[in-house]
Amino acid sequence: MSLSKRITDMQESPIRKLVPYAQAAKASGKHVYHLNIGQPDIETPASFMESIRNYDEKVLAYSLSQGMPELISSIIDYYKKYNMFYDQDEVLITNGGSEALLFTIIAVADAGDEILVPEPFYTNYNGFSSAVDVKVSPITCKAEEGFHLPNKKILEESINPRTKAILLSNPGNPTGVVYTKEEIEMLAELAKEYNLFIIADEVYREFVYDGLNYTSFGNIDGIQDRVVIIDSVSKRYSACGARIGSITSKNKELMKQILKLCQGRLCVPTLEQIGSVELYKTSENYFNLVNEEYQKRRDIVYKGLNDISGVLCKKPTGAFYVVAKLPVDDAEKFVIWMLKDFDVDGGTVMLAPAEGFYATPGLGKDEARIAYILNENDLKSSMNILKLALESYPNRTR
Amino acid sequence: MSLSKRITDMQESPIRKLVPYAQAAKASGKHVYHLNIGQPDIETPASFMESIRNYDEKVLAYSLSQGMPELISSIIDYYKKYNMFYDQDEVLITNGGSEALLFTIIAVADAGDEILVPEPFYTNYNGFSSAVDVKVSPITCKAEEGFHLPNKKILEESINPRTKAILLSNPGNPTGVVYTKEEIEMLAELAKEYNLFIIADEVYREFVYDGLNYTSFGNIDGIQDRVVIIDSVSKRYSACGARIGSITSKNKELMKQILKLCQGRLCVPTLEQIGSVELYKTSENYFNLVNEEYQKRRDIVYKGLNDISGVLCKKPTGAFYVVAKLPVDDAEKFVIWMLKDFDVDGGTVMLAPAEGFYATPGLGKDEARIAYILNENDLKSSMNILKLALESYPNRTR
Repeated sequence: MSLSKRITDMQESPIRKLVPYAQAAKASGKHVYHLNIGQPDIETPASFMESIRNYDEKVLAYSLSQGMPELISSIIDYYKKYNMFYDQDEVLITNGGSEALLFTIIAVADAGDEILVPEPFYTNYNGFSSAVDVKVSPITCKAEEGFHLPNKKILEESINPRTKAILLSNPGNPTGVVYTKEEIEMLAELAKEYNLFIIADEVYREFVYDGLNYTSFGNIDGIQDRVVIIDSVSKRYSACGARIGSITSKNKELMKQILKLCQGRLCVPTLEQIGSVELYKTSENYFNLVNEEYQKRRDIVYKGLNDISGVLCKKPTGAFYVVAKLPVDDAEKFVIWMLKDFDVDGGTVMLAPAEGFYATPGLGKDEARIAYILNENDLKSSMNILKLALESYPNRTR
Repeated sequence: MSLSKRITDMQESPIRKLVPYAQAAKASGKHVYHLNIGQPDIETPASFMESIRNYDEKVLAYSLSQGMPELISSIIDYYKKYNMFYDQDEVLITNGGSEALLFTIIAVADAGDEILVPEPFYTNYNGFSSAVDVKVSPITCKAEEGFHLPNKKILEESINPRTKAILLSNPGNPTGVVYTKEEIEMLAELAKEYNLFIIADEVYREFVYDGLNYTSFGNIDGIQDRVVIIDSVSKRYSACGARIGSITSKNKELMKQILKLCQGRLCVPTLEQIGSVELYKTSENYFNLVNEEYQKRRDIVYKGLNDISGVLCKKPTGAFYVVAKLPVDDAEKFVIWMLKDFDVDGGTVMLAPAEGFYATPGLGKDEARIAYILNENDLKSSMNILKLALESYPNRTR
């Protein structure tokens, strides 16, 4: 018997495949600063566990396939603060943003269809798409331009009759880019002209720095029947292990069809939904505090990177990532070298090589994603180690 | 923009689509005995919530994509009691048995491939398959034969070069059939001869009555590289809302490939895994008590059905379902009629029409699935209502 081509062709997680090197480094006594993963260190609001501890039903039964009505209401109230107004049947609860993405891709694209995605992109966009035979058609964005979008004409060149949707994260993972209002409006125009869905992954909505304005696709008039918002509690409330996401859209036919997939998997865990009802009620002050912290960290990383000669990095303004161009032959080889052959006083740094975030072969080979999810001191140490590592790396290119 | 053909073609849940009629019946003051869904009323072992209440990490972080090592160990220990022996990398934790099925189907079949499934089958086999463009090729089993398998020659006629796997539940949902050792061995032979995977949905493994022997595909020598066991805590420990399932196989290449899908969705909820570690340690006495209860219920339903003239029902020996042939023109119409136009002292019964459990058009139209998940008194009342309903139904056929 043979395995399917779609599974064997599926890209291995570029983030996870270096884990064995990190484990070996730790086993040898090194301290590894993990800047490679998006696991925040911020405390999960206590209301999450409190509400779960109070659960006392004798039978842990199935909940509704669309999600608990209380959680949907809580999310609707949350959106209202951003002038986004949804009905109860316009929100579906999912197993994390991951399932939200997978179900939406299945619903808008058949096998052989294409989805436009600005690259570098969140690597699982490609993983999920290829698992269900949908092709990611990349729109290349450049480090030199802070990963902002190319102009409309270039985007149009990638559209063909099989193109069904534009999928993007904003604020961006892995780049930290926050698209301008003009960029969002340009994509909205494109979607209208070419009759596309917009799958807007806005799980980092609150992580915007420097007092910048943020434009959600949920705020653009005239396209709401073609907009699907992907959301999640994971980063927003530092509750990655809860796996509660959602699909929101005013396209009721789309929602009715996706509900069939939700019914197929019966329901999302009851307890995590109960906890998430409370998360979505968290006061806005929480975001202010968290943002202040991340902005400080962003500043340390941005300054640290720009203090290293040969590194290219435009200031990222959102999420908690940045993609930097490094003066190395191959970022993956460099990361492995840091884990295996380098340390400063027993410490080393792990980054995520960026090549896996691109669909175009060869791009991103000298780039890496840095997640600033450690405290200020650890980030300063990490930047120092990175600087010294780049000075010693035998395959430095400039 | 248009929705995908695969989503619009996907079958709506035949169980859930009648829910509005039940809601209307309740709104009109009727009591509805729900024999249509597989939600047990048995209490979830208290150890589940106890262990979760003790969780006190400040950050609810991602867990490992393959699942928590403690949970995998707990499942490995559970299997040992059935003489099934697995290594740590031969078990993957999933979001319920549902995700286990979806991932396995993607991994063994490409778009256009086929999977053999005895019908009537758990309806989501068809839903998940069609969502990822895999065709269910049905093997018809008959009420008159207690839904046991046809002979090998008939099975062979359904196999072609695109057939990749045999998928079946044992004990069976919706039929309650427990396949004999000879049937299991016949399927094993078939899998070897035609080079197929066997996807064995054994989530009802413990629900076997009358002291019958149960044969797991995990106990058949010489085929372990082609067997994938699907399991779940939902029915086993009456924890449907936990959504913890698993994929188990000694085919390490298959497991390595499915791990990529697991990595794509990052992880399964942390808390539900912590609770499930304890569930899998539940003493065997729990199963004895639960089984005794279900066997009593099975007896009430079986006797009740056979006391109604015109009803055909062979004795089911497993799970907590039975599919009965009713003397009606159309079981769906009959169920709607019971909800809308019939009651006995204000009570009525809801069954699951069986047509949706078949892939062959037209089959199962006069059949319904009954889940015996209510207490003895309620089941007796339900059987009495059903008997009177069949006596009054205007479109009775025999």
